[in-house]
Amino acid sequence: MALEWPPLYDPSYVPPEDQEYWDPALETMPPQERDALIVAKLQRQAAWAYERSPFYQKRWGEAGFHPDQLRTLDDIQRIPVITKEDLRQDLLANPPFGSNIADDWQNILRVHGSSGTTGIPTIIAISKGDWERIGEAHARVEWGAGVRPSDTVFMAAPFSLYMGAWGMLVGAERMGAKCFPFGAGAPGQTRMAVRWCLAAKPSVFYGTPSFCLYLAETAREEGVDPKEFGFRTLFFSGEPGGSIPATRRTLEEAYGNPVIVDSGSTGEMSPWMSNGGCRHASGMHLWQDMVFTQLIDPTTLEVAPWGGEGVPVYTHLERTSQPLIRFWSGDLASWTDDPCPCGRTYPTMPRGIYGRVDDMVVVRGENVYPSAVENVVRAIPGLTGEFRMVVSRERTMDELTVLAEYTPEAATEAGIDAVKRQLQSDLGATLGIRSNVDLKAPGQLERTQFKARRVIDERDLHGE
Amino acid sequence: MALEWPPLYDPSYVPPEDQEYWDPALETMPPQERDALIVAKLQRQAAWAYERSPFYQKRWGEAGFHPDQLRTLDDIQRIPVITKEDLRQDLLANPPFGSNIADDWQNILRVHGSSGTTGIPTIIAISKGDWERIGEAHARVEWGAGVRPSDTVFMAAPFSLYMGAWGMLVGAERMGAKCFPFGAGAPGQTRMAVRWCLAAKPSVFYGTPSFCLYLAETAREEGVDPKEFGFRTLFFSGEPGGSIPATRRTLEEAYGNPVIVDSGSTGEMSPWMSNGGCRHASGMHLWQDMVFTQLIDPTTLEVAPWGGEGVPVYTHLERTSQPLIRFWSGDLASWTDDPCPCGRTYPTMPRGIYGRVDDMVVVRGENVYPSAVENVVRAIPGLTGEFRMVVSRERTMDELTVLAEYTPEAATEAGIDAVKRQLQSDLGATLGIRSNVDLKAPGQLERTQFKARRVIDERDLHGE
Repeated sequence: MALEWPPLYDPSYVPPEDQEYWDPALETMPPQERDALIVAKLQRQAAWAYERSPFYQKRWGEAGFHPDQLRTLDDIQRIPVITKEDLRQDLLANPPFGSNIADDWQNILRVHGSSGTTGIPTIIAISKGDWERIGEAHARVEWGAGVRPSDTVFMAAPFSLYMGAWGMLVGAERMGAKCFPFGAGAPGQTRMAVRWCLAAKPSVFYGTPSFCLYLAETAREEGVDPKEFGFRTLFFSGEPGGSIPATRRTLEEAYGNPVIVDSGSTGEMSPWMSNGGCRHASGMHLWQDMVFTQLIDPTTLEVAPWGGEGVPVYTHLERTSQPLIRFWSGDLASWTDDPCPCGRTYPTMPRGIYGRVDDMVVVRGENVYPSAVENVVRAIPGLTGEFRMVVSRERTMDELTVLAEYTPEAATEAGIDAVKRQLQSDLGATLGIRSNVDLKAPGQLERTQFKARRVIDERDLHGE
Repeated sequence: MALEWPPLYDPSYVPPEDQEYWDPALETMPPQERDALIVAKLQRQAAWAYERSPFYQKRWGEAGFHPDQLRTLDDIQRIPVITKEDLRQDLLANPPFGSNIADDWQNILRVHGSSGTTGIPTIIAISKGDWERIGEAHARVEWGAGVRPSDTVFMAAPFSLYMGAWGMLVGAERMGAKCFPFGAGAPGQTRMAVRWCLAAKPSVFYGTPSFCLYLAETAREEGVDPKEFGFRTLFFSGEPGGSIPATRRTLEEAYGNPVIVDSGSTGEMSPWMSNGGCRHASGMHLWQDMVFTQLIDPTTLEVAPWGGEGVPVYTHLERTSQPLIRFWSGDLASWTDDPCPCGRTYPTMPRGIYGRVDDMVVVRGENVYPSAVENVVRAIPGLTGEFRMVVSRERTMDELTVLAEYTPEAATEAGIDAVKRQLQSDLGATLGIRSNVDLKAPGQLERTQFKARRVIDERDLHGE
């Protein structure tokens, strides 16, 4: 297939407001035809990576894979998956960028950080071309959610290490919507958000579902009915809440029945946006021509059938600077090829992402890994190293409590206090979120002989 | 003078890295020639505003001014100045945008909020064309500070209501520098900044001088020498510290003699960047062809002579969406036309902005107005309404303490506690910064009969 790669999009193109699709041809393409397009893009993406990325040269060389072997879409199964542990090892060996930049350093436009994933600083380097493609990808998915140039989008997510907020911004800018990048996370900011939403009357909310709930609660405390904001659309990412029926109902009641759309991927694939729903609440569509996603059965490692469950394995199709080809997300989802009333011919994850095959937890939109907490706990001399993480929900906000044990040596009042303060501070610096610390006497936390269940998630995300 | 207005800049233009000036012709223009250019731009800016902005139609109509009267630069003195109180009154009469949008609503690309100034939510609406011109303006001033496309710029300022951070980002993006928009203000973020600076080794720091000092201190607490970050340039805004010799010396020692450049304007003029220094530490140049600035003697209301002191009065020259023409900043500065070794022919404020003619204070980069605090204090029934603001400096961070009096009715332990919590919470929501609260018994704060000195600034910004 003749194909321009990396793809260049016309930055002046914007569809008419009443058009259902940003790109009708791509979004309603018969799946077989799309598969051919995906193969063509994948061949170029893989060749690009193989030529320029030491990461892939090494891995694929060892696995006996060469991009020339990609003839049909089934051949993608020949490519070894990449796990978070693979990325971690590569980063440790090649700090701070890893060995997968795959583009000239002078083409790099943005540098962002990603914490959480591996517990060590991971730098995302994004080329100018990628930044434009990210804008196009987000504009398409946001359009699919019903965002239009006439909207004012209130972006209530931190503009810092969390890439989701930046992706939303660049997509909404690309479309020509009015962007109000407000941020989140600083002291007092939620109450300020109430005032600004009242003043500016934005039509679209972007952020996490739990922050959206918290905003409604804060509004009511201020004597403001959140319906007064006039949100027409709630566009969520960072958390699965937008796909959880009970949460949706609460939000619909609070905000006067806005359209609620869930989106998201996994941190490593961002800032690409490739999963996103439409106004029909059918789940998250997989926008396969931008990022190709397969659900892989974690036991057989075969592609899950329609209606089945598996781990989303993601493949960038148009990323030059840090492409991930067959990234094993560790999430759990089911998928279907049932048609959606929106007319898009993409597969759909009807319940969004609802679980994990490992034990990462998402706390207030941030990925928190037991391995990162372990790193912190084990580095403090006054602690035994044993720990638990308890994730609970206080009203609408997630709370993370880390339980650890002080050592016999540290068992004075001053010693315990010092250890506690250090743990709290180190956790904040590593995780990027506030957590509570509960110190126990040595030996109070039960030890297990095999795999410790270190994470206790007290939130009942699906039954609430 | 034949002139395209509003100006369109070529978005693909970037000078060679070793070129001193972004725009040699404009930056080294003989002052008389520049004055002619300024008059030509001013005529069009004023005509645009008069045609489209009810704000100017009303004000200028009442003052008997018409843009046709602008023939020489001296005629600008015919235009009445705009004070913060004028903007406040206009906002109260025309919430939430005021009556000065002056561009079609469908051209508006960004919506931002500005707190502080008036104590009521003020929305900044920025057109697409303005956004591009803001990028050009910032790129020019950043280039003047020595920032180049090969730099990686660590942006340690909150990406929220503070426009300075967004301006820096759009300018550095326009130039093609690598941007690392990190943010600031969330719990734990300073310690995270230490890790990211170590990992990414950015060459330019952007933020406030006090945050830069705090970052150095935090690094040392973590056992990291801030010199290891390798900052080549510290580019400051939001606070005058970059022009204060003692602060400069401390920063030079901490970071291993980087180039330190001060920039800034006043909140109402942002996101335009029009004051900014160069590597010669001669002060802040006034980039007169973008925003025209005059220092006005606050007693005679005449233009201050070279070497004299006055209030910077700013005039946008290329803003369509919310132009401010002769905005009385209330700041204090001196200016000179002494040549700078950099070769730019702009006037210079050698000591930056060093004072205020009113009593606004800048706390951790945020403008804090006694009127905003007064609004909060007077709205709480359990307080007498009397108050003081004490600004101090604890190590390198500004601290704001608000003293107020509980009423006799609230004088129970529970009552005082409730009032105190409400005051703290309301201050946070209004000011956007954390403050301390110190409640006194009724009558403990001294009353005056004329103008109360409500602000006690214990920081010795210039003698330290």
